[in-house]
Amino acid sequence: MSHLSFQLVETADRVNSFIKEVVELEREPALLYRAARHIIDAGGKRLRPFLVLKSCKLVGGREEDAIPTAAALELLHTFTLIHDDIMDEDEKRRGLPTVHTKWGVPTAIVSGDLLFAKVFETITKYSDLERVSPKRILQVLRNVSDATVTICEGQTFDMMFEHKRTILEKEYFKMIQAKTAALFETSAKCGGILGGAKESQVALLGKYGYCAGIAFQLVDDVLGLTANEKALGKPVGSDIREGKRTLIIVHALKHASRSQRKKILETLGNSSSSPTKTKEIVGLVTSLGSIKYVEDKAKEYIEESKKALSNFSDTKEREALINLADLIFARKH
Amino acid sequence: MSHLSFQLVETADRVNSFIKEVVELEREPALLYRAARHIIDAGGKRLRPFLVLKSCKLVGGREEDAIPTAAALELLHTFTLIHDDIMDEDEKRRGLPTVHTKWGVPTAIVSGDLLFAKVFETITKYSDLERVSPKRILQVLRNVSDATVTICEGQTFDMMFEHKRTILEKEYFKMIQAKTAALFETSAKCGGILGGAKESQVALLGKYGYCAGIAFQLVDDVLGLTANEKALGKPVGSDIREGKRTLIIVHALKHASRSQRKKILETLGNSSSSPTKTKEIVGLVTSLGSIKYVEDKAKEYIEESKKALSNFSDTKEREALINLADLIFARKH
Repeated sequence: MSHLSFQLVETADRVNSFIKEVVELEREPALLYRAARHIIDAGGKRLRPFLVLKSCKLVGGREEDAIPTAAALELLHTFTLIHDDIMDEDEKRRGLPTVHTKWGVPTAIVSGDLLFAKVFETITKYSDLERVSPKRILQVLRNVSDATVTICEGQTFDMMFEHKRTILEKEYFKMIQAKTAALFETSAKCGGILGGAKESQVALLGKYGYCAGIAFQLVDDVLGLTANEKALGKPVGSDIREGKRTLIIVHALKHASRSQRKKILETLGNSSSSPTKTKEIVGLVTSLGSIKYVEDKAKEYIEESKKALSNFSDTKEREALINLADLIFARKH
Repeated sequence: MSHLSFQLVETADRVNSFIKEVVELEREPALLYRAARHIIDAGGKRLRPFLVLKSCKLVGGREEDAIPTAAALELLHTFTLIHDDIMDEDEKRRGLPTVHTKWGVPTAIVSGDLLFAKVFETITKYSDLERVSPKRILQVLRNVSDATVTICEGQTFDMMFEHKRTILEKEYFKMIQAKTAALFETSAKCGGILGGAKESQVALLGKYGYCAGIAFQLVDDVLGLTANEKALGKPVGSDIREGKRTLIIVHALKHASRSQRKKILETLGNSSSSPTKTKEIVGLVTSLGSIKYVEDKAKEYIEESKKALSNFSDTKEREALINLADLIFARKH
């Protein structure tokens, strides 16, 4: 196991134990708490908590002081996954049935809401006000709520795109910036704030998180077309069947001939598309250079994210964050 | 117009203008913001903001300092309404189609989420930290997030009850305590905290809000069976068709003969029940004394809520809160 993998597991363990304390399986109604824990307990790399903890330490803070916020941002992420799965009618997540598939839409809605409430409960209840000033905690809470507003806007754009014929690259970036990058950005910024960073440092950490988040989503889009079901945790080609407008599709539609364009649009968003049909589309977008284009873009953002850290002194934490950026890109293989 | 009605309108106007600033119709995506504003703009008495503002002033604070929290708690209330309407499959609210009926479930989910995020954004962004200390704001945020966790638990109990044959009175009270009273309690407490109240005062305000909230729900249950569609803003008898376990039903089932019990259970939760059939059930539960029983209970809680204010000095604000409690009971006529 590489040093980064070891660090990721270590962070995940700490964050997971904390989450188990704040979202207790023993509470009533059991149905609600079981549903809320379902996706959390199914795994996940806890990347956002990692950003919080390492950013905090990078600027001279103590990881302990950032644990509640780190856990809270994982709860926030999980809440968005549960609700997004309902909206996108996704049936699998992390290799398990999604919450609404297992318990129905009403329970999925309310268990997402519960996790969202727990985000703020966790930060306000468990942050150590002797060590981090109430003013800083308020700053964290403001960043977190702002990011959630942005995520809701991003999710709405994403849903609207499915009914739009042409999506511009600019529109695509506006969407993933809101839907994915905002939370990475906020995670790094909150870590910095909790660690006592100067404003300029918080901004740089935000830039790091933001660029890493954009790259993460681009790589995710590639994996959605190229990975197998086991690695994905959900059926291959579901992005295509759902009509998701990834950058790959945006690029392909722009560079396709009239007949290729027609073929892509016929398959896109067609829930009865066969695996052969979606495979054909993957071949087509590959031949159009769209996958390569997105991979190159992801690489650019990764380089950009690492550059944002160049002014910080050369510590273990900076190395960890740089390695994380590289790992985000390396996932595509 | 009575003095209280005048005060309610005045508060509502202030809170409404503030809400229009924090949930702007002009923002993109327009669909999201229009859906989020739909139920807010359809009216409502703004009772929870009223509790916040008057409680704040009662303990010597300034209403201005509590406006962001007052507005935020109305947003919180609206978020729960939007999501509850999806879960309960309600088609009308405040005389208009519900959000999911008008725009579909996905948009209703995400617009509820947006309002929930706005709750915390509003408090953290607009509270005047020069006038109210960050520590007090954190206390407010903790109360608000705790209340939301409780509301989610209450909503889940409510949904579970629809599938249960027997509900005890104790279980019913546990449910409405969580689903309705917690937010009234929190509104009064937050007002107190923002106004600089002592802990004992905050507790008394909480008791006032809690008891008023229980009474509010009991009266709501009565209105659900006895009011006309115009007053309700939704079809008469929908509680019965949805199988809602109100205290009226709990009491009636306990005191019904075997054949009466059978009749009630046949109609309860039967979405195709005719208006004649639901009318028959209303007649039956009236003859069993169940409506009178619930009205008497509501009256007890109203008296209890007013008693909690007896130790405060006799100000205009105390009078307003006492009158509000009376109004909550008087709604039943």
